[in-house]
Amino acid sequence: MGNTLRVAIIGSTGYGGVELIRFLLGHPNIQITSVISSSSSGSLLGDGFPHLRDIVTDLLDGVDVPLIREKSDLVFTATPSGVSAKLVPQLLEAGLKVIDLSGDFRLKDGALYEQWYKHDAPPQELLNEAVYGLAEIYGEEVRDVPFISNPGCYPTATLLGLIPAVKAGWIDPATLIVDAKSGVSGAGRGLGLTVHYSEMNENFLAYKVNQHQHIPEIEQVLTREAGKPVTTTFTTHLVPMTRGILCTMYASVNGNRTNAEFIQLYSEFYKGRKFVRISPEGKWPATKEVWGSNYCNIGFAADARTGRVTIVSVIDNLVKGAAGQAIQNMNLMMGWNEALGLELTPAFP
Amino acid sequence: MGNTLRVAIIGSTGYGGVELIRFLLGHPNIQITSVISSSSSGSLLGDGFPHLRDIVTDLLDGVDVPLIREKSDLVFTATPSGVSAKLVPQLLEAGLKVIDLSGDFRLKDGALYEQWYKHDAPPQELLNEAVYGLAEIYGEEVRDVPFISNPGCYPTATLLGLIPAVKAGWIDPATLIVDAKSGVSGAGRGLGLTVHYSEMNENFLAYKVNQHQHIPEIEQVLTREAGKPVTTTFTTHLVPMTRGILCTMYASVNGNRTNAEFIQLYSEFYKGRKFVRISPEGKWPATKEVWGSNYCNIGFAADARTGRVTIVSVIDNLVKGAAGQAIQNMNLMMGWNEALGLELTPAFP
Amino acid sequence: MGNTLRVAIIGSTGYGGVELIRFLLGHPNIQITSVISSSSSGSLLGDGFPHLRDIVTDLLDGVDVPLIREKSDLVFTATPSGVSAKLVPQLLEAGLKVIDLSGDFRLKDGALYEQWYKHDAPPQELLNEAVYGLAEIYGEEVRDVPFISNPGCYPTATLLGLIPAVKAGWIDPATLIVDAKSGVSGAGRGLGLTVHYSEMNENFLAYKVNQHQHIPEIEQVLTREAGKPVTTTFTTHLVPMTRGILCTMYASVNGNRTNAEFIQLYSEFYKGRKFVRISPEGKWPATKEVWGSNYCNIGFAADARTGRVTIVSVIDNLVKGAAGQAIQNMNLMMGWNEALGLELTPAFP
Amino acid sequence: MGNTLRVAIIGSTGYGGVELIRFLLGHPNIQITSVISSSSSGSLLGDGFPHLRDIVTDLLDGVDVPLIREKSDLVFTATPSGVSAKLVPQLLEAGLKVIDLSGDFRLKDGALYEQWYKHDAPPQELLNEAVYGLAEIYGEEVRDVPFISNPGCYPTATLLGLIPAVKAGWIDPATLIVDAKSGVSGAGRGLGLTVHYSEMNENFLAYKVNQHQHIPEIEQVLTREAGKPVTTTFTTHLVPMTRGILCTMYASVNGNRTNAEFIQLYSEFYKGRKFVRISPEGKWPATKEVWGSNYCNIGFAADARTGRVTIVSVIDNLVKGAAGQAIQNMNLMMGWNEALGLELTPAFP
Repeated sequence: MGNTLRVAIIGSTGYGGVELIRFLLGHPNIQITSVISSSSSGSLLGDGFPHLRDIVTDLLDGVDVPLIREKSDLVFTATPSGVSAKLVPQLLEAGLKVIDLSGDFRLKDGALYEQWYKHDAPPQELLNEAVYGLAEIYGEEVRDVPFISNPGCYPTATLLGLIPAVKAGWIDPATLIVDAKSGVSGAGRGLGLTVHYSEMNENFLAYKVNQHQHIPEIEQVLTREAGKPVTTTFTTHLVPMTRGILCTMYASVNGNRTNAEFIQLYSEFYKGRKFVRISPEGKWPATKEVWGSNYCNIGFAADARTGRVTIVSVIDNLVKGAAGQAIQNMNLMMGWNEALGLELTPAFP
Repeated sequence: MGNTLRVAIIGSTGYGGVELIRFLLGHPNIQITSVISSSSSGSLLGDGFPHLRDIVTDLLDGVDVPLIREKSDLVFTATPSGVSAKLVPQLLEAGLKVIDLSGDFRLKDGALYEQWYKHDAPPQELLNEAVYGLAEIYGEEVRDVPFISNPGCYPTATLLGLIPAVKAGWIDPATLIVDAKSGVSGAGRGLGLTVHYSEMNENFLAYKVNQHQHIPEIEQVLTREAGKPVTTTFTTHLVPMTRGILCTMYASVNGNRTNAEFIQLYSEFYKGRKFVRISPEGKWPATKEVWGSNYCNIGFAADARTGRVTIVSVIDNLVKGAAGQAIQNMNLMMGWNEALGLELTPAFP
Repeated sequence: MGNTLRVAIIGSTGYGGVELIRFLLGHPNIQITSVISSSSSGSLLGDGFPHLRDIVTDLLDGVDVPLIREKSDLVFTATPSGVSAKLVPQLLEAGLKVIDLSGDFRLKDGALYEQWYKHDAPPQELLNEAVYGLAEIYGEEVRDVPFISNPGCYPTATLLGLIPAVKAGWIDPATLIVDAKSGVSGAGRGLGLTVHYSEMNENFLAYKVNQHQHIPEIEQVLTREAGKPVTTTFTTHLVPMTRGILCTMYASVNGNRTNAEFIQLYSEFYKGRKFVRISPEGKWPATKEVWGSNYCNIGFAADARTGRVTIVSVIDNLVKGAAGQAIQNMNLMMGWNEALGLELTPAFP
Repeated sequence: MGNTLRVAIIGSTGYGGVELIRFLLGHPNIQITSVISSSSSGSLLGDGFPHLRDIVTDLLDGVDVPLIREKSDLVFTATPSGVSAKLVPQLLEAGLKVIDLSGDFRLKDGALYEQWYKHDAPPQELLNEAVYGLAEIYGEEVRDVPFISNPGCYPTATLLGLIPAVKAGWIDPATLIVDAKSGVSGAGRGLGLTVHYSEMNENFLAYKVNQHQHIPEIEQVLTREAGKPVTTTFTTHLVPMTRGILCTMYASVNGNRTNAEFIQLYSEFYKGRKFVRISPEGKWPATKEVWGSNYCNIGFAADARTGRVTIVSVIDNLVKGAAGQAIQNMNLMMGWNEALGLELTPAFP
């Protein structure tokens, strides 16, 4: 397999890691050569994740950069924020391509990072080097680069839903309000009362209001696309379900725009991009329409009565919001069809 | 039991009806004298609702106004919108007190009703007569009146969350955006794919965007409280859970107001009202905090960065959003303690 | 309030503890005089359980036996197994009445306890003294005693479903198989992957097969009732819901017995006992029929084709399986109506 | 694509139909040439199933046998029982290969069919001709035949869990009891209170006790494998989740057999069969381990104390219990690798 890309995954014992594995196992151009966990090296991934028993049969490797380099060409770092900041420089220096799924390299401004993430920022030259892989928007920029910072789950849903209207000048960025809702898997596999079944089942709640670290990421991109500073109000909620993000976005419309016009604008903007689907007039997307897949569905409700538009976008937070988009970025980086290995139909019901 | 109020419930085979029964069975001052269903009269309520087997042992009555009058003093009409419009006039004419849980008598403007509800409006004199029973706000107005229109579930959560700030002039009503989320029981017991378990489980969706009939109800009250016309953007979503509404409300703040100031304003506004609880700073309410109870919890996040405040309110849609507030209105109408029969602690977990 | 019983609750920060509080707050004959937590004394219960904010307003006490004795007459110990074994002797010695919700005093044989619970057994004289409070069966025995051991959740559902048939000799105890399913709250508030929302949602699993510590408890009672040694096969499963236990029980029938005969046998056996309801022929109970209440519903399917009967029973594990039955036992101990404070209608839907 | 098999799907608007489409879209050797619905012909499948919007872009065909024959070589009939009985004879006569997912051709005895299914039986010669496609057991028999009857969901989980022990004579078939639990999607897309979200959420129930039409199917196969008549007690339950079946099976063991011996027996029996996985000692499978995939996982608990073994098996009811096994049967029928198009890793969490 001369053309096969050898891939390692660091952080295999998190939800992002096992989701990468689920998709990469079906990818025609790659071979998973190392599945890495700092905490569980030497054991079988299937011991902690029985769904992978008899599927992933190699023992977990530890974090050993020279060994990773020997076995692989590209590394996905599905590590917690703070860990990637320290690990990625070593991987890049060793000559590996890196796609980082932590948030450590998304903000270009180290001071802003430290304010929102409460960790020391990574080296500024790496913040500069990292290409922000919002695939449908910056797909050209990730081609052939060695280092991609994969977008956050909330920013992906939000930005794909807003950028066409912002770029077209149809909405006023100063009026933007984003009400975001996520399934519980977004909180990861760590333990806590918030993710305790008995407390989260039959429950819906807001958290980190105005304090979520994805806020500056969204504002950084919108500021770039709007060509002027954008500040947003952004609220996150937890939904009693495992997967899915739905963002409801509000903005004042410049002039009169109908739903049909929004649909046309977005359809043309995303023309040829398989993973963005526009809902027909009078329909708004549901998270289950994209469950387990790399799709992002977007719908509109322009309201002449209030002069505002309501834009609704949905993704699977673990796929388009993490592992799927990371693989899409790998495909684009390598010059392959962006959909390779990602063509799973959503699972319904 | 000379002082006992004799109560009938019409629409006993809906979720509002059985929730009325759950609370009324424990109410010290009333006796349920007739449980009425147009579709199931002559049968046992426990046949369709096994949780009531051996608890409600009288057969269901049909809708027979003279018989209702003979057996009871007050009627709760938990009937579908359109049905109440025709039935309530007869009940009132027979001399019964009526608390209506349909939406038919909430809007004062019959034309507006017909526009949003797509039914013929009830007689204008009854629209005028109906007192809107938002208990913590208009509790004085319902005292001794014969006819109360019980508020909708979404309006209850929204209005309790907004009115203190609107009345104080702290927020700009022109900037109001309400993002509302409801458990599935709000859609009632009728059948349909939207409430099909396999389609709604592990799903989150927006519906009726800008089209929900609770919009004019909210605007009518806010217009009254603000003293000038208020128009809102209001979005409804379905959450994969049975009970609970959470409203996330956004508005621009007039001047600088801290969370502590909002907490103080609301604490004073609702002082002495048992069923409204204000969350401490840095905490936002979760629907499970009020599950099965008549409480409404409210929390705040004022954001100097954006000049907006985010207000979060939660209720149980079937209790404070329907049956519980209806009983609270009955208590107020009769001059009793508003909490009589409603002092159930939320069920957790 | 001269006739008021003063009650303390130890273990208030577990699910059993807050469920005791939910019911005791509505009990006409008691006053909660101390809410006790070894881990959180000095703080407000509402800090960890926001549903109780503004409802329980006294600070948590620590475990101080003399103080408990001073403030209260009866103590519910909703403590983990192993803790009660050490604490209860002190409480009894201080002259308090005790109703213990841990499993520490259910088995009469200390060696059996140590085999299944993996802790040191409590003193044998206390194992002898503890009266096993399966309320509908041993209600006479708990009257006026100072110390009641409250049954386990699974044993309550199982034994209420089996004892009438076993006592009547209608089923062969040697053939008994019990397939039990529980909501996740049965696992308590402790953290772990098994109760992690993302892992337990949309999941169903068997656990502790043949190893659950409730097995010897069930066998001890059935052996007493059958008058000969009974051994059972008993399997526990976790259901993705918060509350509810359903036991499906299989046994060979001695002779031919119809469903109608089983229904008659059980109806007569439980005549006058409010909290046991027998399902009509062709209906089997669902856990939601008893949600939040102290009921146990039982249904039957006798099968002439196989010579076996299938008995299905349901309870709310936190109520009839814990807090509710404990209060029922208090009522019986005090000579009160067993239903005092427990007359909550199940919450549906 | 000279070697491509042209495939039609009848019953595309049911859950079995859309699950067939999800897998067949990724199958390398086939082309979906017609997607058929009697009720929705002429419309887009994506209108009723938005997850398929822009993925399935051909309009739905009606049921037109000559047209089906013209466009395709093989038909999956995911039609309701009773419909297949009438339709399949026409398809076979037209020269099409048929894999039927209804239950109409599973029982060899037409009288037994009519007793359990309450419909007229299909022609006896077709009952004789249909090969029962329990893939891991009768994979050799389906090779090259034109007509396969796909097993039921419960029988698949039950029979894969029991057959090795029955054939080895390790368990006594006369003592068999099967306690089966299914996610709600097993009840199909039809409307009803049982599948109403508000009634099924946070609920667990038994249904059709001793009356499920899968009972004679299980007994027919066990009778064949045991070489003597087998009668079983079989109970079905609904779990508040969408997908997954777990069967807990009980039988008396002939002689003493350890868990390790059961594990070895089954591991050898299923050696080389990718889709059956045996759980290690002390572990029992959870439905989530196989979610969305064609796997069946099996675990054991032999109990010397009672002389019984408890066998636990799990499948995804829509995959291994329906669409996945149907495709596996197609692969075997065509002489292909049984796993073609089915190699999706379970989705977790």
